This record gives sequence, structure tokens and C-alpha cells, in this order.
Amino acid sequence: MKHRVVVVGAGFAGLQLVQDLAGADCAITLIDQRNHHLFQPLLYQVATTLLATSEIAWPIRRVLRGRPEVVTLLARVTGVDRDAGQVVLDNGDRIPFDTLVLATGARHAYFGHDEWEADAPGLKTLEDATTIRRHLLLAFERAELAHDPAERDANLTFAIIGGGPTGVELAGIVADLAHRVLPREFRRIDTRTARIMLIEAGPRVLPVFPQGLSDYAAAALQRRGVQVLTGQPVTGISARDVTIGESPVPCRTVIWAAGVQASPAAEWLGAPADRAGRVMVDAHLTLPGDPRILVLGDTAHVEADGKPVPGLAPAAKQQGRYAAALIKARLAGKPFPKPFRYVHQGNLATIGRNAAVIDLGRIRMTGWLAWWIWGIAHVYFLIGVRSRLAVAISWLWSFLSRQNPARLITQKDTARRR
Amino acid sequence: MKHRVVVVGAGFAGLQLVQDLAGADCAITLIDQRNHHLFQPLLYQVATTLLATSEIAWPIRRVLRGRPEVVTLLARVTGVDRDAGQVVLDNGDRIPFDTLVLATGARHAYFGHDEWEADAPGLKTLEDATTIRRHLLLAFERAELAHDPAERDANLTFAIIGGGPTGVELAGIVADLAHRVLPREFRRIDTRTARIMLIEAGPRVLPVFPQGLSDYAAAALQRRGVQVLTGQPVTGISARDVTIGESPVPCRTVIWAAGVQASPAAEWLGAPADRAGRVMVDAHLTLPGDPRILVLGDTAHVEADGKPVPGLAPAAKQQGRYAAALIKARLAGKPFPKPFRYVHQGNLATIGRNAAVIDLGRIRMTGWLAWWIWGIAHVYFLIGVRSRLAVAISWLWSFLSRQNPARLITQKDTARRR
Repeated sequence: MKHRVVVVGAGFAGLQLVQDLAGADCAITLIDQRNHHLFQPLLYQVATTLLATSEIAWPIRRVLRGRPEVVTLLARVTGVDRDAGQVVLDNGDRIPFDTLVLATGARHAYFGHDEWEADAPGLKTLEDATTIRRHLLLAFERAELAHDPAERDANLTFAIIGGGPTGVELAGIVADLAHRVLPREFRRIDTRTARIMLIEAGPRVLPVFPQGLSDYAAAALQRRGVQVLTGQPVTGISARDVTIGESPVPCRTVIWAAGVQASPAAEWLGAPADRAGRVMVDAHLTLPGDPRILVLGDTAHVEADGKPVPGLAPAAKQQGRYAAALIKARLAGKPFPKPFRYVHQGNLATIGRNAAVIDLGRIRMTGWLAWWIWGIAHVYFLIGVRSRLAVAISWLWSFLSRQNPARLITQKDTARRR
Repeated sequence: MKHRVVVVGAGFAGLQLVQDLAGADCAITLIDQRNHHLFQPLLYQVATTLLATSEIAWPIRRVLRGRPEVVTLLARVTGVDRDAGQVVLDNGDRIPFDTLVLATGARHAYFGHDEWEADAPGLKTLEDATTIRRHLLLAFERAELAHDPAERDANLTFAIIGGGPTGVELAGIVADLAHRVLPREFRRIDTRTARIMLIEAGPRVLPVFPQGLSDYAAAALQRRGVQVLTGQPVTGISARDVTIGESPVPCRTVIWAAGVQASPAAEWLGAPADRAGRVMVDAHLTLPGDPRILVLGDTAHVEADGKPVPGLAPAAKQQGRYAAALIKARLAGKPFPKPFRYVHQGNLATIGRNAAVIDLGRIRMTGWLAWWIWGIAHVYFLIGVRSRLAVAISWLWSFLSRQNPARLITQKDTARRR
């Protein structure tokens, strides 16, 4: 019988692994609770009406249609039976493995305030993105309907929590939406009066970037009309307001971009995890004491040069590639002593139309050139000619027409509820 | 004070009316419970993975951004106070009118079997389309996971109820999906074994077309692997099976394309309606005895040459155009004796890849030429260069690659529930 590789999660790490295992003499089962691979780095653009859901997601089966040795299952994993060497699915099925790869990603986390989730959605799945899009667009609609000036202003107040790349990117596009896209479309309100707050507990936005780029980003956001509130912890969130330090600010739309928590892989394994729930793995990305099991991407705590490897798409892909090489060596009975090494390719973030920051170590860039380079790089990373074409057209269209192409409010009953 | 025109519903009739009132000396309020105008004739293609939601829907505000005299409100109408001359919204607001136009469309109807709706979704909104898409795609996923052959076969059985254009179009694409798009992507099942039933209670499919075109459509569907069951009434629908006459057939996916019911406009007005709930209007599309109120499109029962005007997009647009001319004449104080006349432009329906039927009265066409003409005509009818480009690219892509571009299963928790 062929060596059985079971992969849980078709994100950047899992999909890269399966793709790199092409030609290897093994039977692969790829399990995901979604039917699509998602290009998460552009998810904030779906949330902010720039891109359509189908432009950044691909059916996993379709990506792997040319790989008859890969069985794809749409299912939820509920546990791992390490003694029996089986993955347990929610329908009770047990999938036996010789090698198990867990690459199940992360969800947003509320630092002990799970009750905030309902009023401050985070951004990890397509549904998260369409939920945030609905909240954003409905806020303007409710403002147009409001008679009470206080109610109108609260609807025109937007809080984005977390000053990392996602928070900065969201704030920039929300500002563009209020200032450039929507003004001509409303009759009773001036959308340019919207108050957009980017709230960061730490001393500066984009903390992983050099100070100079953080300063540029903050200044560029402020020029766009974003209030950048650094050193200000959020202490409360409700459907009516957000509390910054001691002060409640009436606010109907809160977006959470402040923290993530790994998926429950550590619980499935009964293995040690770091504070963010990431499984502690060794230098070969395997579980200490159980080399059958590899853990990759946002689910794993991997160290490189004494620092944890960041939760970025390139880091996940590198781990997928490394794990494939390791499994192939094992299948060939060869030793594989080389530990995983992370090669940091740089940090990028956009700040809305015509502004971005790029930090490639020696090379640092800001402004419109950085924005165009960022855009071209991201089109390149999408899967397939069709998506590249679609995203490129959407962006060019939006750039030239100042109209955002994906502005649908969907999902039944919600217009009434919120 | 300017004459106040209140329009409820931004479908084909309502939007056409507002566009044709450009330049008229009146204040217009357009109310819709959705933020988008929907191109319903292509909705079945969203349901069957050919088109993305954003390709056939446009934010109403954006369409009307150059019309400062039009106020657009995202709200639900709950009633009409004819004595006060006001429309009542769900938030309690009352919008006064001098002229009221109701163009609120229709919903699918279950002929007294409302309990069927949960298991046999119909197709009127974007959410309906993504719901049906989810049901379709999850059925194949569940079949791939099934161990019991009977359970697998039940998941590979699809029932489409209603042999009108929508039912025929759905059946054709579902057959293409099972036979051409998906086979290479599944490992445990052969999607080509899927059983696709088109069930029609009447004697033939496409009853509004000439007999010859009905026969062609039925034969073309059968060649594609669709079981065409005419003269067979559905007597029961559950989550487990569909009952045709006396025989229950295990079946996990049922799509309802059999009947519609007008929106509750007749109840708001306390006015006489036909069996389908459509308000009886006079030859000027106004409410008998209350000429302030016009009713258009699928909400109205209008007669032309002794027959009710059909619920087609061109009919709705013609009514919008007529109503605008009537309102303009009234504003100018001119008489407007001309009654509404419906000009039937023809019937079209697709039967999947490379097959369609066109009935333009004297000209009748079938086959691939009809399909291409149908496609070009529909691209032309979309709003704006961008949508035309996007739909044309999606269709060409799908035609050349045999891949359907919109195959995402979305909406949280549903993978588990159904």
C-alpha cells in the first residue's frame, strides 16, 4: 500500500505542500472545511468593496483536478487519534495517515473578550469579508435615513482596531470610500464628514516596519482623513459605541484587526502550544517526539534566528515547500537533516489609492510607485490567468473611474437586524 | 413645492421609470429593500456557477449618482396610507407622495405548500442564487463523502420543478456541470452518473413557446442527460425526497422554478388582485379610482390584446417608460389619453452550452447560433461597460476552458447544516 499523507487545510502552506508533492509515490488526502483556497492578503479589499469574492478564491478541486492521486474532502476535522494514526471527521469518518500535516491557519482573537466578536467582526474568511462589507455599507444607508443628528454621526463613525497591515489597509480604503467614491451618491448626508478611527494600543502603526515607514503611513492616513490613535487601548465594544481608554465614542461600525489565535490543532494533538495557540514544532516542522506529524503556517510556532516566523503568506508557502521536500526524502529513504530556514522577503502594506509602504530590508519605498509595485506583485501571486485578469481589470477600473466595483449588500434579513 | 413622485422597487420597471423622468420637474424618492438593481434574467447563471454575484447587480445609488433630484432610500415598505398620501417604512417613517409608483416585483410561490420552501429554494434574489449554488455544490461534496451507495445516489439526484424558461435553463447548466465541468475533479464518484430531473406538471416544457421549439428543447435536454418528466405533478417535497405523482424519489437537491406570487402591494392598497396577487390596473397602469397610484411590472395585472402581459424584463421596462411619459404629461398639464400597449419582442431560453431557442414570432431559431445571439443580446442589456466586459469574459472563459468561474460555497455553518 502506498504511503498515506493526510493534509488538513488548503491554505498557502497546505496547498503548496500538495502541489510540491506532485510525482511523489504517495496517496494524498486533502481535507478542508471550505471548498476554496483563499488569497487572504487581499481579503480586506473584498471587505471594502474593491474586489468580488470570486476574484480571490478558487475551488480546491479545480486547482488539483490534474492530480488523480489527491482525494479532496470537504469536511471538518474534530480530532486526531495519534494512537490509531487517524484523523477524525465531523461525520464520524476516520482517515488513516502515515504522515499527517496540519496547516489549519488561525482565527481572529479578542484577548479574552469573545463577547466583542458580534459587534467587531474580524477578517479571516470570505463570509467575514462580506459581513464587514455589509456593516460598512449599511452604516452609510442608516445615516441617510437618520433624523437624529447624533444617530447620523454615530453611523458615520467607523472604528478599526489594530494598527498592523490589515488595520492600516482597511482604514485607508474606508477613507477612500467615504471621501472619493460615495459623496455623489447620497443626498441627505455628506459622506466626507465620516469619522474614521484607526486605534492601536501600541506606540505606532505598522510596528513590524521601520519607524520611518510607520511615520509615513500615519501621515498618509491622516491626509486621507483617518484619525490615527496610537497608544490607546480599546477597553469596551458594544453595538452602540467603542470605548477608548475611559471614553466611550458612539460608533456603529467596528472592525477587528488586532489579534489572531491559532486553530485548535494543539488540542487535537494534546501538544504544547504558545500563547497564541500555535503548536511548538522542532526545526523540521515536526512534532517533538512524533515525526509522523508536521504542523505548518499560522498553526505552528516556528523560530527563525531566535524570532517566531511571522504569519505571512510567503512564510506559509516556504513551510509547505520544505515539508514536501522532507516527505519526499523520507519516501525515498534518504536522510533529511536540513532544518527549516525562513527567508524573509519583506513587508508590504497599502494605504489606499496611490500610497503604499514597502520594506525589503535594504530597499524601502513609499508613495505611488510603491503602490503600483505592490499591485503588480499581488496580481502575479494570484492563481491562474483568469483571476489575474479579473483583479487587474477591477483595480484599473476602480483607479480610473473612482468607482468601487463590489458594492453589494447581501445576506438575507440582516438589513433589518442591524 | 415640487411634485413628489415616490417609487417603490428598483427593478426593471422602477429603474426605467426613474431614468425616463430625468429632466422632469419633480422630486423623486426611490425606495428599495436592497441596495442593488438585479439583472434577474441571468440569475440562474449565478445559481449554477457561471457568473459571480457582482456581475449582474449594480448599486442603485451608483446608477443614479448623476441625478441629484433622486433620493434613494434602503428601506422596507410596510404599507401605504392612501388617505394621508404617504408610504410607510419599517422604521416608522412616512414618505408623502403626490404620485406613487409601486413596482415591487414577485416572489416564488408554492401553491399552498409553503412548507416546501426550505427544501426547494426558488430563484428571485442574489441570496436565493447563492443558496441554490451552495445546495448544488454541497450535493456533489456529500456524494464524494458518502459510504452508502443509496445515500450517494440520493445526493447525485437533482430535481428542478417547473418547465418554463428558468427550469429549462437551470436543468441545462446543471447537466453541463455534472457532465463537463466536474468529472475530472472527484475521485470516489463519477459526476456523470448524476440524475437530473426536470419536472413539469403540464404537457410540455416551455409552454409559451411554439410546440416545435418545446420539442427541440426537450430533445436537447435529454441529449444532455436530463430526464424530462412532463405531465407529472409534484405532490411532495422533503429534505429526503421528492414525490412525483405517487412515487417518492430519494433526492437531496430540489430547485423550485414553478410559480410566482406578486409582492403584497395589493394588500398595502386594499385593492383587487388576480389569483397571483397582482393588482388589477386600468389601461393607464393606474389604480381604478385613484389615478395618483400606478402599479407596474410583476406586481400589476395588465391586459394586452385580451391576455395578461407576461412577467418579462422587456414588459417591465415598457411599463416604466409608459409611466414616465404619463407622469411627465401630467406635470405639464397635458392630456394623456393613450393607453399602455405591450410590444412583445419575443421569447428566449438557453439549454446549456451551445443550445438555445429563440421565438421572435416570424423568426424561430434553435441550436448554437441561437445561443450566441442570445448571449450577445444579454451582454448588450447589462448596465455599463464594466459588467458587459466582465460577463463576456466569464462566458468566453467558461466556453473555452470548460470551467465555470463562480464555484464558491459560501455562508457560514451551512456546510454542517445541510
